[in-house]
Amino acid sequence: MEFDPTTHPHRRYNPLTGEHILVSPHRTKRPWLGQVEPPSSPNLPQYDPQCYLCPGNSRSGGQKNPVYESTYVFENDFAAILPPPAPAAPPAPHPLLTTEPVQGGCDVLIFHPRHDLTLARLQLPEIERVIEEWIRVYRKRGAEEHVKYVQIFENKGAMMGCSNPHPHGQVWSLSAIPTLPATELAHMRAYAQTTPATSGAPRGPRGRPCLLSEYAHYELGVPEAEGRVVLRNEHWVALVPWWATWPFETMLLPHHRHVPSLAHLTPAEKASFADALARLTKRYDNLFACSFAYSMGIHQRPTPPAAPQSEAEAQDDEENVAQLHLHFDPPLLRSATVKKFLVGFELMAEAQRDLTPEQAAARLRACSEVHYLDALG
Amino acid sequence: MEFDPTTHPHRRYNPLTGEHILVSPHRTKRPWLGQVEPPSSPNLPQYDPQCYLCPGNSRSGGQKNPVYESTYVFENDFAAILPPPAPAAPPAPHPLLTTEPVQGGCDVLIFHPRHDLTLARLQLPEIERVIEEWIRVYRKRGAEEHVKYVQIFENKGAMMGCSNPHPHGQVWSLSAIPTLPATELAHMRAYAQTTPATSGAPRGPRGRPCLLSEYAHYELGVPEAEGRVVLRNEHWVALVPWWATWPFETMLLPHHRHVPSLAHLTPAEKASFADALARLTKRYDNLFACSFAYSMGIHQRPTPPAAPQSEAEAQDDEENVAQLHLHFDPPLLRSATVKKFLVGFELMAEAQRDLTPEQAAARLRACSEVHYLDALG
Ligand SMILES: O=P(O)(O)O[C@H]1O[C@H](CO)[C@@H](O)[C@H](O)[C@H]1O
Ligand SMILES: O=P(O)(O)O[C@H]1O[C@H](CO)[C@@H](O)[C@H](O)[C@H]1O
Repeated sequence: MEFDPTTHPHRRYNPLTGEHILVSPHRTKRPWLGQVEPPSSPNLPQYDPQCYLCPGNSRSGGQKNPVYESTYVFENDFAAILPPPAPAAPPAPHPLLTTEPVQGGCDVLIFHPRHDLTLARLQLPEIERVIEEWIRVYRKRGAEEHVKYVQIFENKGAMMGCSNPHPHGQVWSLSAIPTLPATELAHMRAYAQTTPATSGAPRGPRGRPCLLSEYAHYELGVPEAEGRVVLRNEHWVALVPWWATWPFETMLLPHHRHVPSLAHLTPAEKASFADALARLTKRYDNLFACSFAYSMGIHQRPTPPAAPQSEAEAQDDEENVAQLHLHFDPPLLRSATVKKFLVGFELMAEAQRDLTPEQAAARLRACSEVHYLDALG
Repeated sequence: MEFDPTTHPHRRYNPLTGEHILVSPHRTKRPWLGQVEPPSSPNLPQYDPQCYLCPGNSRSGGQKNPVYESTYVFENDFAAILPPPAPAAPPAPHPLLTTEPVQGGCDVLIFHPRHDLTLARLQLPEIERVIEEWIRVYRKRGAEEHVKYVQIFENKGAMMGCSNPHPHGQVWSLSAIPTLPATELAHMRAYAQTTPATSGAPRGPRGRPCLLSEYAHYELGVPEAEGRVVLRNEHWVALVPWWATWPFETMLLPHHRHVPSLAHLTPAEKASFADALARLTKRYDNLFACSFAYSMGIHQRPTPPAAPQSEAEAQDDEENVAQLHLHFDPPLLRSATVKKFLVGFELMAEAQRDLTPEQAAARLRACSEVHYLDALG
């Protein structure tokens, strides 16, 4: 009997986090009798007088949005993290019960004045403005004295807990590197320090191998039909990672050189970043002909952002071991209304998926890059 | 300014997993404009001719359930893990892309013939039969040659991806210790090996301190009004862990001695386990007067289960460093229809909660132990 990843249950290892994922491809045949999600309505108005993110409207905190014409950033009215000063935490009552105060801030970043658009339906120059805004917030928050990490993310879709369809993301900046980026950084650092550099992949600081650059380099060499690459352009590649958890999870990252953060991007890299984002989000929407729900997050160098450095200094900057990358975690599994629930075994034991990453990549490769709503029109 | 955990954002450390959780208590004031869940209907028939778990009915695999009168166990018709033989995995095409075959099996464990009941509404002797069945499956699957871990869990409620309200749980047995139990075991082992034993808490193998016994011992000494204990009896305690992620997450564990697995429970401990389960699940249902959704999982000793051992041998059994415990992860936050979404920041950075664990415990302590449906009747 020969091993067939589309038939035999197996585990894959996620070298970025050290976790495993259980792959049970034969389970895709299981009938679904559980909860279905309400379909996301594509008939939104361009302007909604009730929306607290639309230009000129009032927010729940009482402030009024300006009549902005491009992107717009403001501090979250219900910030999960607050600016200093913060009182010191009391001593732990027991070594197992520790508290660490957190400081920083939470920003909301509106992508566009129009209530009915999403990244998938913006023009390239509009996406470039979103990218410029991410860079600006990363630099600005990252320069605050106490901030150690700037987490940029987007929750899209009601099924992902997003309470407003107006196109926006969030930025939570905090005085500690959060668990997941810290774990990823530790794995990238260990890889750089212990792995012999053999492939032709771009190298990280001190000429050491970069985990994600090695990985992307390998994936780009696999024949397309067998591989996990969804799309690529001159600087970026989007792929379903070998160790993906969510059915159509992807990672988007630069493949031609090691790039520690958004602040390191050249103008050409920003333009092709916009191209890759546009193409990936259009494919997502086209997969089930709906506005595809997901959580997206940008992982990069802890802050402060690298100050302008000489080439030699940059090489010595241990923090630059980070490779910029985006994760897209979309919940849908079979249709616009049937999602994968990461519950039970997944919460208690380890991640589990049915569809293989290779099957997911093939499905996404088969999608058009013309948005289905525009194709209709 | 003095630190107040109900006002100041802070991070807590989870010593079982090594992860952090961001606590933002002031966020509970945030209005909720997002998705609401359909209310769970309490008007189920005692027998549903369409239900593939009811006695005497046919399952989708074609088999017919016997007219069982208590618990009933069968192999999952869409098992995520399959029995041996399994072919060996091919060599990794790149060191970052590894595959490990998995073998084992998936069982479904029906708690009761009645379609409309849940653990919260069973009689104590009926819950004791569920416990006996868990022990039986743990021993039986654990004795299979290739099985290393037996993961018992329950997904309850449509919002937790459960596709059938008939009271049942699952047991996935596999040839590897899954990520989360493996991480917890590693932390328990490190704790036992490096922490000086000072408190009066029960000790693990070789007289070494047991992380969870130390923790439970500490919690039981905190004045009730300030603490995280929800309920206790002679052998068991249910508490909202200091590091809880889900709003009303609890842990249920023995507190009077170190118990590595279900197979180690004495008859008296089983009876008080049933008592604790009944009381905890009733409080959960009463919190928002609904059938409370959750994922529950039992963590314990990897398998094979400890063979009958002399006291000295048991002391030397390194696997016995595990302390039996149950996690309950319920998603509801504010009402029967508003849940906490672990998305965006939580998926990309680290767990985040609004309500403090102390506030959650106080809310659960205030609930009655008479089920609201019985109180009505
Ligand atoms: O096996 P079920 O109940 O059909 O499926 C449910 O539980 C499984 C184990 O936790 C999950 O993998 C599924 O996503 C969930 O829908
Ligand atoms: O901040 P929002 O959009 O109101 O809230 C949403 O995103 C947050 C950050 O990922 C989560 O903590 C919330 O559970 C979710 O509902």
